Amino acid sequence: MTLPFAQRLQNVETSAIRALFKLLGQPGIISFAGGFPDANLCDREGLQAAAHAAYEQHAQAALAYGATEGYPPLREAIAQLMQSRLAAVQADDVLVTTGSQQALDLIGKTLIDPGDKVIVEGPTFLATIQCFRLYGADLVSAPTDEHGVDVSALEQLVAQHRPKLIYLIPTFGNPTGATLSAERRQAVLQLAARTGTLVVEDDPYGELYFDAPPPPSLLSLSEQVPGSRELLVHCGSLSKTLSAGLRLGWMVAPAALRAQAVMCKQFSDANTSTLAQATATAYLQSGALPQALAHVRPAYRERAHAMLHGLQQHLGAHATYNQPQGGLFVWARFTAPGADSAVLSQRAAEQGVAFVPGAPFYASNPDPATFRLSFATVPPAQIDQGLQRLAAMLAKNEK
Amino acid sequence: MTLPFAQRLQNVETSAIRALFKLLGQPGIISFAGGFPDANLCDREGLQAAAHAAYEQHAQAALAYGATEGYPPLREAIAQLMQSRLAAVQADDVLVTTGSQQALDLIGKTLIDPGDKVIVEGPTFLATIQCFRLYGADLVSAPTDEHGVDVSALEQLVAQHRPKLIYLIPTFGNPTGATLSAERRQAVLQLAARTGTLVVEDDPYGELYFDAPPPPSLLSLSEQVPGSRELLVHCGSLSKTLSAGLRLGWMVAPAALRAQAVMCKQFSDANTSTLAQATATAYLQSGALPQALAHVRPAYRERAHAMLHGLQQHLGAHATYNQPQGGLFVWARFTAPGADSAVLSQRAAEQGVAFVPGAPFYASNPDPATFRLSFATVPPAQIDQGLQRLAAMLAKNEK
Repeated sequence: MTLPFAQRLQNVETSAIRALFKLLGQPGIISFAGGFPDANLCDREGLQAAAHAAYEQHAQAALAYGATEGYPPLREAIAQLMQSRLAAVQADDVLVTTGSQQALDLIGKTLIDPGDKVIVEGPTFLATIQCFRLYGADLVSAPTDEHGVDVSALEQLVAQHRPKLIYLIPTFGNPTGATLSAERRQAVLQLAARTGTLVVEDDPYGELYFDAPPPPSLLSLSEQVPGSRELLVHCGSLSKTLSAGLRLGWMVAPAALRAQAVMCKQFSDANTSTLAQATATAYLQSGALPQALAHVRPAYRERAHAMLHGLQQHLGAHATYNQPQGGLFVWARFTAPGADSAVLSQRAAEQGVAFVPGAPFYASNPDPATFRLSFATVPPAQIDQGLQRLAAMLAKNEK
Repeated sequence: MTLPFAQRLQNVETSAIRALFKLLGQPGIISFAGGFPDANLCDREGLQAAAHAAYEQHAQAALAYGATEGYPPLREAIAQLMQSRLAAVQADDVLVTTGSQQALDLIGKTLIDPGDKVIVEGPTFLATIQCFRLYGADLVSAPTDEHGVDVSALEQLVAQHRPKLIYLIPTFGNPTGATLSAERRQAVLQLAARTGTLVVEDDPYGELYFDAPPPPSLLSLSEQVPGSRELLVHCGSLSKTLSAGLRLGWMVAPAALRAQAVMCKQFSDANTSTLAQATATAYLQSGALPQALAHVRPAYRERAHAMLHGLQQHLGAHATYNQPQGGLFVWARFTAPGADSAVLSQRAAEQGVAFVPGAPFYASNPDPATFRLSFATVPPAQIDQGLQRLAAMLAKNEK
């Protein structure tokens, strides 16, 4: 029999996503297709000690249900983390979430009615597109370049569509790795305040800079733009900095929105794992996070440089690409006329190298020649080898 | 400014819930208001060892993102757990969720369109009511008695409303503590198969029996009723048996529904904490759960008996109540004409004893004289004292 599924499921297209995931698991393949950090870089021993401390010093919390808002000492530790990143955040401002993906889900649940317009970057994070579409969002893509979203185009789209919200990944974005310039950050906040438009800043990658720190977050800068702070939602995560296994993120949002998000979270999963929260609390209280980041950053820098060097050496004639200053991704584009990265990704997989085509990252008007390369989990020597395979595939393809 | 919240938020009434939660935190109060297990009964040392093993033997999993379906060895361990409870479940049948609350949320997201009828027990679990209403469900209450839902009334309601699904807590239910009889279980499954109606069995309490095990689960019995298994969704949890801090539950569902639930979970929180999953895996693989349950069951039995004894002794003339055979709750009703347990719960709190009024547990037609008592977290001597305070309040109230 056919089950009586809800109509909202028809808003979501999963075949492209399934095709991507299939590329990840092939044996012997050099994979640039991942969208995740390298678990081998995690401070396993520090986390193990923190989990021990969770059941030792935070046992009452770690064994039980907890407040939907989050474990109070973790909210405090996250507030201090945000303060160290120059954002004026208090513990009460923080809602702990089951990864920042849940923050996006709660934003959808609290704000999006079927048919509501939502502006996202073109391209943007795949799971945001699907998450918001499940709530019926009508997504509008704003154009981007190497400095992030084009703010004057964004302004026109806001005037035209009067969106429920604007969703941005301003720093080392997924999939592009691009970073919104300081000037554009100011302009986005002014646009928000002037038009009364909510802005969601998704910031999982901001700490993964290679050399200099990126511009301050929209949340931090909102202090300087009157009226913008109460229109700003900031989503953070420990998944890329400490460990994805904790499944911990957070949302800093205007009080009225936070209250509704707490209510929705109560009926979505009641609270985030208190074992995970107590473990993260013990780890953050130990003061070891800066040291963990000092271990992670140079590893990603080395891999990014290997990828950019290899691209220049092996694919110079075949692709253009940006120069990310942090994060996990390089965004690229095949230069051959009519190039379709979906087709080329299949051929590349046959040659033993995987990447993900760019089209699924666009909510509208996809550029089929684009593709995403992640260097995050691949050793530099293999990065070079993988790009050689990619070049060989392209050479073969041209014959 | 007023934020542009989604209309679905208007389906949910939270003031009654907030009023309940306020009762929980007052100093010096003896609280029967909780809805949760006693964290002091958890096997803290066993869990601590399991968390250590998670980062030792399951480190690749515990540090990283994981499959949306769940960590394969945990799916296997849960399947074995279900098999030990006489249900034919394979690892592939299991979707690991962030508590069974998330299973309910995924059921809502995959199945419920605004306006869809859903039949629940009257009364039922508060968070189910709110969870399904957020997806626009129009809830219909089926009458219940001390043997669970009235199946002939249920049959009439199914014929009248053609619901998307029927939601039941057949074993030691929340709030009533009642257990659906074996005969009625058969009848529910036959009704499902005959009418093609999905049935959701929420089973977080089934292992918390005082003396004899309860009748087999609907999932287990569905093997014997042709056509019923593919209409049955079973939700389980480790929160009441092992530790609520893991925040781990699961859903066993027909393949097509499970696939859609996986897709929705991917965009809700991507995966459940792999630290929590690896910890649970190590614990279940250690074989310690039966011993942990052998520690928990007599504690709840002793407290339940203290409560039933105290009710008879102190409140015999003032209230009727059921005789649960397991779980965490006694369901009761003030006998005085026009009694309003919402009013009486406030007066009781002033006398130093808390319970929750019954009306919010009804999706429709509330009985305002009912109330819920949890014995789970209160030592027997305090249970007696709390019931004395309750009797004193009622005596004072009558003057």
